[in-house]
Amino acid sequence: MLARSLRLAALRPSTSSRCPPLVQHAASSSFKRAVTPSASFSTSGHASRSQSSRMTTIASTAAAVLGAVALYTSLSPRHVSPLECEAAKPTPASAIKGGNQSDLPEISHLDPKLLTDTSAPMRKRMETYVKLLQYNIVSALSREEPKARFLIDSWLRKEGGEGISCVLQDGSTFEKAGVNISVVHGMLPPAAVKQMSANHAGLMDKTGYKLEGKDADVKGLPFYAAGLSLVVHPKNPFAPTVHFNYRYFELTHPEKLADGSPNPRHPKNCKDGEHDNEPIAWWFGGGTDLTPIYLFDEDAQHFHQTLKSAADQHDASFYPTWKRWCDKYFWIPHRGEARGVGGIFFDDLTLPEWASSNSTKAYIALSDGTKPTPSKPLVPSVSSTKQHNQDSLFATVRSLGDAFLPAYLPLVQKRKGTPFTEAHERWQQIRRGRYVEFNLVYDRGTKFGLQTPGARIESILMSLPLKARWEYMEKYSGGGAQGRDGKATTSADELQAGDEESGAAEKKTQAALRQPKDWA
Amino acid sequence: MLARSLRLAALRPSTSSRCPPLVQHAASSSFKRAVTPSASFSTSGHASRSQSSRMTTIASTAAAVLGAVALYTSLSPRHVSPLECEAAKPTPASAIKGGNQSDLPEISHLDPKLLTDTSAPMRKRMETYVKLLQYNIVSALSREEPKARFLIDSWLRKEGGEGISCVLQDGSTFEKAGVNISVVHGMLPPAAVKQMSANHAGLMDKTGYKLEGKDADVKGLPFYAAGLSLVVHPKNPFAPTVHFNYRYFELTHPEKLADGSPNPRHPKNCKDGEHDNEPIAWWFGGGTDLTPIYLFDEDAQHFHQTLKSAADQHDASFYPTWKRWCDKYFWIPHRGEARGVGGIFFDDLTLPEWASSNSTKAYIALSDGTKPTPSKPLVPSVSSTKQHNQDSLFATVRSLGDAFLPAYLPLVQKRKGTPFTEAHERWQQIRRGRYVEFNLVYDRGTKFGLQTPGARIESILMSLPLKARWEYMEKYSGGGAQGRDGKATTSADELQAGDEESGAAEKKTQAALRQPKDWA
Repeated sequence: MLARSLRLAALRPSTSSRCPPLVQHAASSSFKRAVTPSASFSTSGHASRSQSSRMTTIASTAAAVLGAVALYTSLSPRHVSPLECEAAKPTPASAIKGGNQSDLPEISHLDPKLLTDTSAPMRKRMETYVKLLQYNIVSALSREEPKARFLIDSWLRKEGGEGISCVLQDGSTFEKAGVNISVVHGMLPPAAVKQMSANHAGLMDKTGYKLEGKDADVKGLPFYAAGLSLVVHPKNPFAPTVHFNYRYFELTHPEKLADGSPNPRHPKNCKDGEHDNEPIAWWFGGGTDLTPIYLFDEDAQHFHQTLKSAADQHDASFYPTWKRWCDKYFWIPHRGEARGVGGIFFDDLTLPEWASSNSTKAYIALSDGTKPTPSKPLVPSVSSTKQHNQDSLFATVRSLGDAFLPAYLPLVQKRKGTPFTEAHERWQQIRRGRYVEFNLVYDRGTKFGLQTPGARIESILMSLPLKARWEYMEKYSGGGAQGRDGKATTSADELQAGDEESGAAEKKTQAALRQPKDWA
Repeated sequence: MLARSLRLAALRPSTSSRCPPLVQHAASSSFKRAVTPSASFSTSGHASRSQSSRMTTIASTAAAVLGAVALYTSLSPRHVSPLECEAAKPTPASAIKGGNQSDLPEISHLDPKLLTDTSAPMRKRMETYVKLLQYNIVSALSREEPKARFLIDSWLRKEGGEGISCVLQDGSTFEKAGVNISVVHGMLPPAAVKQMSANHAGLMDKTGYKLEGKDADVKGLPFYAAGLSLVVHPKNPFAPTVHFNYRYFELTHPEKLADGSPNPRHPKNCKDGEHDNEPIAWWFGGGTDLTPIYLFDEDAQHFHQTLKSAADQHDASFYPTWKRWCDKYFWIPHRGEARGVGGIFFDDLTLPEWASSNSTKAYIALSDGTKPTPSKPLVPSVSSTKQHNQDSLFATVRSLGDAFLPAYLPLVQKRKGTPFTEAHERWQQIRRGRYVEFNLVYDRGTKFGLQTPGARIESILMSLPLKARWEYMEKYSGGGAQGRDGKATTSADELQAGDEESGAAEKKTQAALRQPKDWA
């Protein structure tokens, strides 16, 4: 109890009547006791580049995990009474007809000016962005689909938040297309914060609260998450599958401490009450990646080049670093092949510990997804080429989100009318099977979603294709016998060799999946 | 170093010229030092019933994990040079034609008398059994299949062992049928033994060796595993899918200690050399379960009754206990439904610690698969109704393996000619999708196999159906929104209610999956 009193005393402002800083600077005197000596916080307002490099890794994985909470687990109609839930079941009345743009998710209440309004809270800006983007994408995909209609499910989450799922299936252009947004908030239990911290030294300390044990300061931390998630599986085997997902996540101060007393770090309980409840931690995550069934080099090049151009506007380090991360993330170790030809992928995109959200510009240590090892717990990272702040990172996310349609739609338009045979469809379903393997066995968002009580399973598994196929010893995909080292049994050269004329296109695609290459 | 010398001294016989007992009795004086004080070993040659109950849980999960090694990971053609490997690729020459039984796996070298020869080592007996059973099953299935042929792959494993995979696909009776055996041995690294021990207090101690650290006694433990694994997905949607798997596993003494010196507990290094290298630990595992697409009560009853009759011959406790375990194991938490209507499932079937393999008869504490919790680390178990020895457990396994054909084949024969529509096929593929979800997300054998370097992926994933389908918000399977607690959003009653006449058969099946019931 003494230890707890000391910590709580430390939480209360001791030297002035002002609130303690709401973005916690660990070394400030009033919080010193809450920080363990081993924590790697800077002792001045600014850190060296190498220090900032350490800071940036704190949130990694956590973002993916919580991105999943935000995007997938939202939704439990199970816990929602009819009065609370706008529509837990599909509402055919609001389904939109192909080509008819009047029947889309409602956006008239949104203010596009927020996107560039740096004085507005990021949560509001991101919410506006994902809703507008969903509208644009659903409109554009609908124009390509004469037969099927998007089913639009709106839902409210009892614990806080809302979402809109737009799913179309069995169309003539699209086998399946899902465009989901969610904007959720609630209380993250200490166990979940701990899970986030497991691979990221410092996050538990960074919060400044003792989160566990009988003398815990708080019962959890409020979180907020907004994101958009999309998967499109076209019907034509020559048109590629695409996936993308962008998300924003933050943790804030709870209003009350564990004993029920007001939390002095929450602005409501602050003497002058002038501060907003700024996040303790925030980050962006996301990515866009392409999965051809039959590879056309020019399609992969167009896709990558469009993403690269969008990223390059903001920082020349982004595309090359996140392209590598994408290749690492979408790898199917047991097959020794990539899910597709990649794109970009990033997570934990935030500012260094010492930089506040809106003012201080900072170089950022960018991860390319290299995993920490016991001997190298902090992975050396690429540095951004420019100084960034939260607004410039949000602008990056918007550019990448906006790049989706120009990167992808031309490929569908070009390929959707190509004649195909049953043999092409068979190969398509074989490749779909690999997609299922990746999503069910490795994808962190899917895995976490499936484990989360109250998750809306239909939204999580909308990423799966309508049809998939598994053939024993399928002849073009190389047998698949290999190990966890990720090296395939059959090399790309071996796949392309052989005296068979048939299967050249299948083998070319398979070979490209075995050895990720540069496309832009 | 001193500690190590003490331990090694303890391993050497001190009071007589005879070898130390090869099945280690923990309390025997010459091994006392190698056992930690917290280990729950009996201090006499016999234990009370409650003590035996603790003992039996030692190997659990480990068996499943290692069953997977044995059955699935065997095989790495990657590590096998052409000279070492009989046939890493399918050998069409040895494929068998439907109805033609002359072209089956070779069994002329096997001696069926071994099955009942209690003087023969169990590894030899089990190997003989799985090979004969594979022959019988492949013969029987072939007689039902006029169109497709089994592909027979024989393989040798560089590290030790062999296997035969018989797979048929795209037939007119069977969409896919795989009947695989493997008989493998090798060295289990300390990390793998530790992984086995994680949930099972005592296994590390039970070995009597220090397995880890700089002063480890040994570099690993020899293992041996033999098993048969089968999955059949019929083409007709009214014929059910079936799966079964029986396996035997043992750990033995290594010939050398970590420092290269002879291990005094290995019979080769024993002064009088009269003992065989009896296992340190051994166990059986297995199960048989049914997955109807359209449920016919009489089919489920016949299947369960046949298994029950086979088990009841040996012990009245077996069927009811293992039926419960089966319902627990084949549960899909994120769907709130079972994979099918169950059958039997067991693991870690061995004798209590104090009973030697062949002589002492013992009551066994049977698990029904209830998972240990921190407050209840040792789950209370059902006791066998009779005394057992290794031979009686092997006889049980044989009866259950032999019961497969009479339990299943009549169902295929009865249903394979039933006319069906595209709508029935659609539902079949939806149910196949759930099968894929279970196998890729939850099945321990599959998960472990996919993670194991050198695994033969085609053999692991032969369990997946040829075709599967995922529809968003599929109308008969209830939406699937639920949580980890395993409770479905839509109750069985709700599913069966509703004013739709159509879909009655689908909804009846779905309802049965939501609430496992007694069939025998």
